Amino acid sequence: MSELTLSQANQIVEAALAKGAELGLNPLTVAILDAGGHLKAFARQDESSIMRPQIAQGKAYGALAVGFGTRWLDAAAQERPHFVQALNGASGGTIVPVPGGVLLQDDNGKTLGAVGITGDSSDNDEAAALAGIEAVGLKANTGA
Amino acid sequence: MSELTLSQANQIVEAALAKGAELGLNPLTVAILDAGGHLKAFARQDESSIMRPQIAQGKAYGALAVGFGTRWLDAAAQERPHFVQALNGASGGTIVPVPGGVLLQDDNGKTLGAVGITGDSSDNDEAAALAGIEAVGLKANTGA
Amino acid sequence: MSELTLSQANQIVEAALAKGAELGLNPLTVAILDAGGHLKAFARQDESSIMRPQIAQGKAYGALAVGFGTRWLDAAAQERPHFVQALNGASGGTIVPVPGGVLLQDDNGKTLGAVGITGDSSDNDEAAALAGIEAVGLKANTGA
Amino acid sequence: MSELTLSQANQIVEAALAKGAELGLNPLTVAILDAGGHLKAFARQDESSIMRPQIAQGKAYGALAVGFGTRWLDAAAQERPHFVQALNGASGGTIVPVPGGVLLQDDNGKTLGAVGITGDSSDNDEAAALAGIEAVGLKANTGA
Repeated sequence: MSELTLSQANQIVEAALAKGAELGLNPLTVAILDAGGHLKAFARQDESSIMRPQIAQGKAYGALAVGFGTRWLDAAAQERPHFVQALNGASGGTIVPVPGGVLLQDDNGKTLGAVGITGDSSDNDEAAALAGIEAVGLKANTGA
Repeated sequence: MSELTLSQANQIVEAALAKGAELGLNPLTVAILDAGGHLKAFARQDESSIMRPQIAQGKAYGALAVGFGTRWLDAAAQERPHFVQALNGASGGTIVPVPGGVLLQDDNGKTLGAVGITGDSSDNDEAAALAGIEAVGLKANTGA
Repeated sequence: MSELTLSQANQIVEAALAKGAELGLNPLTVAILDAGGHLKAFARQDESSIMRPQIAQGKAYGALAVGFGTRWLDAAAQERPHFVQALNGASGGTIVPVPGGVLLQDDNGKTLGAVGITGDSSDNDEAAALAGIEAVGLKANTGA
Repeated sequence: MSELTLSQANQIVEAALAKGAELGLNPLTVAILDAGGHLKAFARQDESSIMRPQIAQGKAYGALAVGFGTRWLDAAAQERPHFVQALNGASGGTIVPVPGGVLLQDDNGKTLGAVGITGDSSDNDEAAALAGIEAVGLKANTGA
């Protein structure tokens, strides 16, 4: 398989939101970007705050930006804050370097896109992303 | 009803894409914004080009910006191009002033959000938007 | 008198909205900027669309930008569109070059600030601005 | 009640400024945004400095961005500075993450908008915001 389809992307969104419901998480916002960083599917649950679209997309974009899930960027921000600040600037303020941005990869490790989730703690956001990815049988890269 | 729900937004996306399939349109991209202009639901069909997310959202945002569907902005751009250019600048380059951005309104004329669609001709994009809105029983404002 | 006060600015807003009510205009948005182009007072009536804040401020800023009310910019945009486009760019997309941005001046012609109004036709927006300015006994420069 | 009215917003501004006068605070700037983050009412007292409009609006926007008053962002900025820096970037430099941005909520916890105040210490700015909110009988969320 070489490209993420809308059908897969929608399944990831649904499964991630189902995981959020199962865990009793706050309202979530889920963004799915393709390998080029362009939005493919998106859902923001009722009662989510207004910048959740940017945060969810910024996590997914951050993961694609460096080729690792955003847990890697979160660690980098603590070790080399100037690097992550520079990435933020270079991306026009797009990337959000905290956990919850997870790469979608096939069995050969090829990156097909990324999921970004926000709304609960970063760890819970990431757990919902992993559930979404598992639902379509893809591999996840959290950057851990 | 005072606010657009994610459930309604998803139904609009599905019905709009079904209309596109029925009419044999090119791959479509559909964005649903809430009344404040914040993304609620989104889908980009396979084989859509990479700036479709900005175009779909820009049509929906343009409609919300002025309180009329983007057919109004399309006409304004021909009568007073400097006004629409200024709106583009004032929105940080966000608005896209061609048909296919349609306001979602309740029976009292209250705006609950907007749909923006791109991928085929502007007229066909708008037709898909209208089918989506009809599916949830809301009123449409195309700006005509 | 050398500076616009908040008390005057609030009176201008009130009188402009009263004029809108008297004329049966659409919901209006009124912005008052000081001589430096910084926001002093503002009101957006219920049911106004979401970019009205930028449009009202952009009219007032445009008037201050060139030292004439925005009727001057509207004419300039038709004679020399490249000049007004360049001003739009140079202002970071701020200025809105259509009537409804009016300078506030004292009896010596000194500019104390500007009013920007949007929501109805540009001519009606300007009429509401003039009523506001008259209410505090200042002179108006519409750029006509 | 489902939406903030201009009448309520104006009352909040007046009551906040009255609180500032009562406490002998520095000149204040007060911005009221609706639930979508769009300016509804605004006042900048005489002798306020020129970026107070951006600061007041940035506090209110920051609160709406994440769904908590800006005291939450102030704490987050100390625990995870890279997250708050990223939010600043993702908002186009809009949010101001210090106390004084307070959500307006109804009895069901639904967010109707936000108040942002600047001019004195952040704690005093917040106290004036709370007085404004109390005056209209809404609930406040400071993010504490």
